[in-house]
Amino acid sequence: MNIAIIGIGLIGGSLALSLRGFETHIIGVDINKKNSEEALKLNLVDEILPLEQAVKKANLVILAIPVDSARKLLPIVLDNINENTVVADMGSTKDGICSAVSNHPSRKNYVATHPIAGTENSGPSAAFSGLFKNKTTIICEKEKSADFAINLVEKMFNLLEMNIIYMQANEHDRHIAYVSHISHITSFVLGITVLGIEKDEKKIFNMAGSGFASTVRLAKSSPDMWAPIFEQNAENISVALDAYINNLQSFKNIINKQDTKQARKLMKQANDIRRILSGIE
Amino acid sequence: MNIAIIGIGLIGGSLALSLRGFETHIIGVDINKKNSEEALKLNLVDEILPLEQAVKKANLVILAIPVDSARKLLPIVLDNINENTVVADMGSTKDGICSAVSNHPSRKNYVATHPIAGTENSGPSAAFSGLFKNKTTIICEKEKSADFAINLVEKMFNLLEMNIIYMQANEHDRHIAYVSHISHITSFVLGITVLGIEKDEKKIFNMAGSGFASTVRLAKSSPDMWAPIFEQNAENISVALDAYINNLQSFKNIINKQDTKQARKLMKQANDIRRILSGIE
Repeated sequence: MNIAIIGIGLIGGSLALSLRGFETHIIGVDINKKNSEEALKLNLVDEILPLEQAVKKANLVILAIPVDSARKLLPIVLDNINENTVVADMGSTKDGICSAVSNHPSRKNYVATHPIAGTENSGPSAAFSGLFKNKTTIICEKEKSADFAINLVEKMFNLLEMNIIYMQANEHDRHIAYVSHISHITSFVLGITVLGIEKDEKKIFNMAGSGFASTVRLAKSSPDMWAPIFEQNAENISVALDAYINNLQSFKNIINKQDTKQARKLMKQANDIRRILSGIE
Repeated sequence: MNIAIIGIGLIGGSLALSLRGFETHIIGVDINKKNSEEALKLNLVDEILPLEQAVKKANLVILAIPVDSARKLLPIVLDNINENTVVADMGSTKDGICSAVSNHPSRKNYVATHPIAGTENSGPSAAFSGLFKNKTTIICEKEKSADFAINLVEKMFNLLEMNIIYMQANEHDRHIAYVSHISHITSFVLGITVLGIEKDEKKIFNMAGSGFASTVRLAKSSPDMWAPIFEQNAENISVALDAYINNLQSFKNIINKQDTKQARKLMKQANDIRRILSGIE
């Protein structure tokens, strides 16, 4: 089977590595020449081809590029595929891309997915084969994809040892705003805030420990990947951020009043996150 | 040397384990009977004694208890020590405790410290011997402690392989609000926010990945430890949280306007956190 992976970064590269056992020929496509060369050198892909040639040759096309590029490119990819080619994207927003192809004659060849996997690093050199193992992946609008397309994509996720869940695209975007998008924003903004203080207090980071590191880790994430996600999911993120900022204001008021009893009560509620994290850490 | 450790939880227990090589007899003190029994069972301490007996017997007394208890207990401990006994606390706020003993006749026997080490877990079973290694520790108001007291505490931190830095108590509290206290608050509040959504959306956490886990990890932290820290450092935390909330509001406005160029610019600034984290992760 020929698999074309468009975008050989952390996600595309890790997927390429993981699909080696799928008895496949992996074709890489990347507009960045340096990435293409690196992907070949790191043996992530068998060959690099231009987009159109890769799509023509492939049985399965994966888009692993920023969500703005994916939304633009998906209709073009669908224009160029063969009748039995399956196309999937891996983006962190689903409503915009699904809408962009809802009336495309080859809509049924496309499967909208989002593997909940990643790190704060990017580019081909960040790729590793265990990235997807035991993680969750989401398939949206399953009913709009042909059975042969869903079957192939499910087979791929099973090979990656992922847990598949199904939902509508707008439901995905609403929920992911809370459990992924705002945690990236809280991290970016924590980074910006403390870096701002550092201008006057050069040594402040000598005092930072592992707790700070954990909370701010996502501030290392790629702006090129995240800016279009925030743009496409602006409405849901805004609602989630309002809830977060309101809770933060309430917590600040409690601290200002030195209402230790209430602070303790809220933190005990927050401790319930242990139940959740035991499943994903 | 007899070392009394008051509070045999994560910090006190880890310290006890680490000081085994210090040719010491470790005396544990804990108002929680279950913790005392567990500390003996886990072999963290050589014996458990009541506070006054332990203090009388010790050459070095370490307070590893919540900062409200430490502030109350430190004057009592200093009332009961011998002339050459050294006392140190390990709390995450320093101004309150230093003020509480600034006029105590034995002030010079006391060293105000804060090892920047910890995890989101607590209690004797959370203790481990490598907790302090290669981490930073802070000594405040060095000039108010006797040389013999500073020397012993420095010797201890050197044995723990910690990097010692010195500052004033109010400076410590102002800075630590940014690099520790507000990251705990952003985590607690993220936990509260998403747990609030879960009431209506039972399956939302199926979609949470390692990024969310990292950002929300500190929400597992002990309310008994953190509530008094927030109380004692309320003023500095409030200023730091204002800066954070302002930055968050600005970021939200940028997302609302879908000003992707500006979002990208801010995230690129935040990426500079890589420089910082390379030293502490």
